[in-house]
Amino acid sequence: MSESTGSRSSAHGTSSSAQTRLTSIVSHLRHSSTSHKHKVVVTRNLGPDIMPLLLDHPDLEVITWPEDRVCDRSWFLANLPGASGALVMLSEKINAEALDKAGRTLKVVSTMSVRYDHVDLDAIAQRGVKLGHTPDVLTDAVADLSVMLALMAGRNSKETTSIVQNGEWPNFNWAPFSFCGPQLSASSFSPTRTAGFIGFGRIAQATLARLIPFGFTHCLFTGNPTSNSSSSVASSIQAKYPTLKAVRRVGLDELARESDVVFVLAPGGDKTYHIVNEAFLKQMKKTAVLVNTSRGTLVDSDALIKALREGWLWGAGLDVVEGEPNIGLDHPLVREPRCVVLPHIGSATNESRLGMATLAAQNLIAGVLGEPLPAELKLTK
Amino acid sequence: MSESTGSRSSAHGTSSSAQTRLTSIVSHLRHSSTSHKHKVVVTRNLGPDIMPLLLDHPDLEVITWPEDRVCDRSWFLANLPGASGALVMLSEKINAEALDKAGRTLKVVSTMSVRYDHVDLDAIAQRGVKLGHTPDVLTDAVADLSVMLALMAGRNSKETTSIVQNGEWPNFNWAPFSFCGPQLSASSFSPTRTAGFIGFGRIAQATLARLIPFGFTHCLFTGNPTSNSSSSVASSIQAKYPTLKAVRRVGLDELARESDVVFVLAPGGDKTYHIVNEAFLKQMKKTAVLVNTSRGTLVDSDALIKALREGWLWGAGLDVVEGEPNIGLDHPLVREPRCVVLPHIGSATNESRLGMATLAAQNLIAGVLGEPLPAELKLTK
Repeated sequence: MSESTGSRSSAHGTSSSAQTRLTSIVSHLRHSSTSHKHKVVVTRNLGPDIMPLLLDHPDLEVITWPEDRVCDRSWFLANLPGASGALVMLSEKINAEALDKAGRTLKVVSTMSVRYDHVDLDAIAQRGVKLGHTPDVLTDAVADLSVMLALMAGRNSKETTSIVQNGEWPNFNWAPFSFCGPQLSASSFSPTRTAGFIGFGRIAQATLARLIPFGFTHCLFTGNPTSNSSSSVASSIQAKYPTLKAVRRVGLDELARESDVVFVLAPGGDKTYHIVNEAFLKQMKKTAVLVNTSRGTLVDSDALIKALREGWLWGAGLDVVEGEPNIGLDHPLVREPRCVVLPHIGSATNESRLGMATLAAQNLIAGVLGEPLPAELKLTK
Repeated sequence: MSESTGSRSSAHGTSSSAQTRLTSIVSHLRHSSTSHKHKVVVTRNLGPDIMPLLLDHPDLEVITWPEDRVCDRSWFLANLPGASGALVMLSEKINAEALDKAGRTLKVVSTMSVRYDHVDLDAIAQRGVKLGHTPDVLTDAVADLSVMLALMAGRNSKETTSIVQNGEWPNFNWAPFSFCGPQLSASSFSPTRTAGFIGFGRIAQATLARLIPFGFTHCLFTGNPTSNSSSSVASSIQAKYPTLKAVRRVGLDELARESDVVFVLAPGGDKTYHIVNEAFLKQMKKTAVLVNTSRGTLVDSDALIKALREGWLWGAGLDVVEGEPNIGLDHPLVREPRCVVLPHIGSATNESRLGMATLAAQNLIAGVLGEPLPAELKLTK
């Protein structure tokens, strides 16, 4: 018990990093002599709600990066030898170098992310190491943000908030259609509302659920061309929401033409690279908005800039942008008045990140103890 | 037909105001000789979708303020004599002076607004003039914005958008809980979600409808103390949304203590002045957000500034602020990082303003022709 208390302070004392480092070293030295414990390397302090899951676990010796910034590569590699598990962030490359440093003791890598493009899947599979990640727990947070961006893009939030922030409200020359954009909700002037989803997985379906009471009447989606389950998906969605007049899998052209809001929610990678391109954007309604809360690479930024400048669509709400985080203040999308840009905060709610951190801790513990991971990414050797 | 075309150009030719004025005068002179037409004064060009309702009407002679700014009082008063109706904005004071200028011919004043605090109700009632306004048609637009502000306040949109707009994204020091705020949706960490409504009319109920798929489980509301219909309202809402665990009318203290989001949606006036004050804010959850989309006077700005600075609540989303539009860039709420301020855009969607303008035109026409107004404010003499 005194040991776990010692370990806990090593992870929590971020207010005094020198003290923290000292405690961490002492804790490490003490744990090194207790050979029945499994050493795990944790590359970020996960806070007072989550760290006790690891620090208080009787079978773990926890080595936590003590700084409040991205873990140094050299620290990570230096602490890996003899580790049974590693709990890492997107910032840690898990490649042959890291895996070899850890050596044969390594049973599990648990990443606190849905994505795993920082992991060399071949290298980890070859070594028989399990890989855990954190899907599902961020579904609601991203669906919330998708709805928020659809509203913000339609309601000209960038222009209207800047009128206030720049002190222009007192002298603004009001007119009957000042600030007006397309209404997300159905109205007598727009009795049908169509949501188009590029990718129709959990997050897309959770977003659709939220749109139903806004009066959405039609749901269009694209799917994996090799999947033959589209018709059963469509009929189950249709059964769930009787107010929808149609739920259909369609091609990209029809989706672009018919949608009032297009939600980009497909995985990244070569197959979806620039799936929203000039040809797609040219077909959109002039009153439609585009929301991207998946990966920046799915939307051709140059084409979107042109589309916004020339009024091919009403506006855009982006949580992700090609080349992020290297998106400076002169990036044309940042300057575009009808393009809301957020710094990739899709999963950034206290509840969602607690869920991700909890699942990452659970994956780590299960992997170290040789139990099934709650969320394992199955690898093929 | 040639006359109505003449009138139409008087309302549309905003690109050349001298030409417009000339056409307007000519049209006016021609119409003055056609005694069977009812003269109506319109204080703002309502655009190409709405003006034809008036300009093409065979019984109307339409005099429209030709500039793209608030109507001059002198122009308004000079054009009122002999008018049967006036279609006005919030900017036009309808007092004894204006009513007496119009004289006994005046049958109706139609305001393109829900509010009527620019109208002297006693003066208009004494003269037997009908008053039309435009309720209901903006319900969905304001409900949409209420949900948007709840999301923006919780998700730290002011801080996160400014990180991007200020060019700080590339060098931002990410941490597992960066950008995180309270999640609007229910989660395993927050399985119950409580919406509190100060005022529970149409807009509040439309807002509640939108929150149901976010996993809201409890609905609390305050009502008019003299109303005894609260229990029937509660039971009809409960029947409509079976996933709600409770729908209850409560006192302000309980509403403040229990709500995850407080929506201020009651009418303005003396009875609700500063209903959200220091005592209310002190009782709120530290993770709760406040949304005001009704009237600025309901929230004590000084108390809210103090509450945000001291962390009594998480954040606020305001579409209205006491003293608006005189809210400069140094206003403490504008400077507060967790307070989103919009320049009163609640009803500002194309669809909603089209609906308001259409209803205002219909009220004007009905009043002039002696028919029942689609939306008349009943006055007591």
